[in-house]
Amino acid sequence: MGMKRGDLLYEGKAKKIYRTEDPDVVWVEYKDDATAFNGEKKGSITGKGEWNNRISIHFFEYLGRHGVAHHLVKSLSATEQLARKVTILPVEVVVRNRAAGSLAKRLGLEEGLVLTQPVVEFYYKNDDLGDPLINEDHIRLLQLAEDQQLAQIREEALRINELLIKRMDACGIILVDFKLEFGVDTAGKLLLADEISPDTCRFWDRETKKPLDKDRFRRDLGEVEDAYREIWTRLGGTAHV
Amino acid sequence: MGMKRGDLLYEGKAKKIYRTEDPDVVWVEYKDDATAFNGEKKGSITGKGEWNNRISIHFFEYLGRHGVAHHLVKSLSATEQLARKVTILPVEVVVRNRAAGSLAKRLGLEEGLVLTQPVVEFYYKNDDLGDPLINEDHIRLLQLAEDQQLAQIREEALRINELLIKRMDACGIILVDFKLEFGVDTAGKLLLADEISPDTCRFWDRETKKPLDKDRFRRDLGEVEDAYREIWTRLGGTAHV
Repeated sequence: MGMKRGDLLYEGKAKKIYRTEDPDVVWVEYKDDATAFNGEKKGSITGKGEWNNRISIHFFEYLGRHGVAHHLVKSLSATEQLARKVTILPVEVVVRNRAAGSLAKRLGLEEGLVLTQPVVEFYYKNDDLGDPLINEDHIRLLQLAEDQQLAQIREEALRINELLIKRMDACGIILVDFKLEFGVDTAGKLLLADEISPDTCRFWDRETKKPLDKDRFRRDLGEVEDAYREIWTRLGGTAHV
Repeated sequence: MGMKRGDLLYEGKAKKIYRTEDPDVVWVEYKDDATAFNGEKKGSITGKGEWNNRISIHFFEYLGRHGVAHHLVKSLSATEQLARKVTILPVEVVVRNRAAGSLAKRLGLEEGLVLTQPVVEFYYKNDDLGDPLINEDHIRLLQLAEDQQLAQIREEALRINELLIKRMDACGIILVDFKLEFGVDTAGKLLLADEISPDTCRFWDRETKKPLDKDRFRRDLGEVEDAYREIWTRLGGTAHV
């Protein structure tokens, strides 16, 4: 597959998406740029593009082996991958196993509280509105997803949660919460898309409860690059590629 | 039923609740006090206690005739009523027919936009947290209501919406949205509780779209007392009692 990189289709906060000769496939390049608090905080994390690309490929391949339909086609380089071209549904799906971040704040719960059962939340992917929490009636009203897609997304998100908990537990890491995005490919199939990485998950070291994710950037905890690299090495990747 | 007013059990923002000799019945007194924005704005609306008590009794009796189980026992005076003693579920239920207030803001919709279908929202009744929007997973996590209660509440709220739309339409008024609270009585039965009034509903005049509700207080629109009285007279009540 000697794909060539075509025109830039879209540049997001953390990735660039290019055309390829295949209209059903895009070329994804991960960047070191980091933003938080709906773009209010901006920075760069050296090596992030590489770790996130590698980590995300690792997770998508692992989930794929367990039957999760996803957009990843193949790895191209340290910071690049090929993916199915999808239309992203404007609903961010968050699955939580412990109270942290906005859930702890919204419900007045202590950070780290183990939830008796996973909590699924939907957020409206809309920067101008600050990605607000929404419910299924809002999704129906705005026609962000069909009822049947939403049921499928919820079920898939809970299954992914179980698989990721198991994978991270084997590395001594607690999966606190994570965000997923889903898309519909040119054939109309629902696929897990976007990325799964320390940018989109909260990972805590099981022993020390130290965050090994983007919270180190958000909350100025230092050792940001180290955290991303640590996740990659715990997953069995070579530390320097 | 020569009930006597006993000790004060609870004083809320808009009502006082007293014991009676019957442990299953409380004495409710409506106040003129008005608050908005989670208590940040405080004031008094002359006559509000009377209009809200009368309006709420009118609606509860109307809904009762249509089979809605509710807490109202009987009217006592201009500002007082007897009600079944209930434990209020800490979930506020909002039903919306048009975009207004927090929905317009959350989803970036124009005020007054007619929703293609009613939207039901649940809020966590918690002043310290500012009554945040929550979803059914949050309700389950915090054990605010049982799944079966929640399904019943949602169904009942939509039925109440249809009944109130019809009742207000006959008065030339648009029911934009409203908030309900439900409680469980001493026998474990789920009952519609609290009040239905211009404090808890958005009512717009059908011709002029003029708000005839608490938004006149919230947004300093003037003629606040007139709006409460207007709702009562449109419902067929005598203007001065």
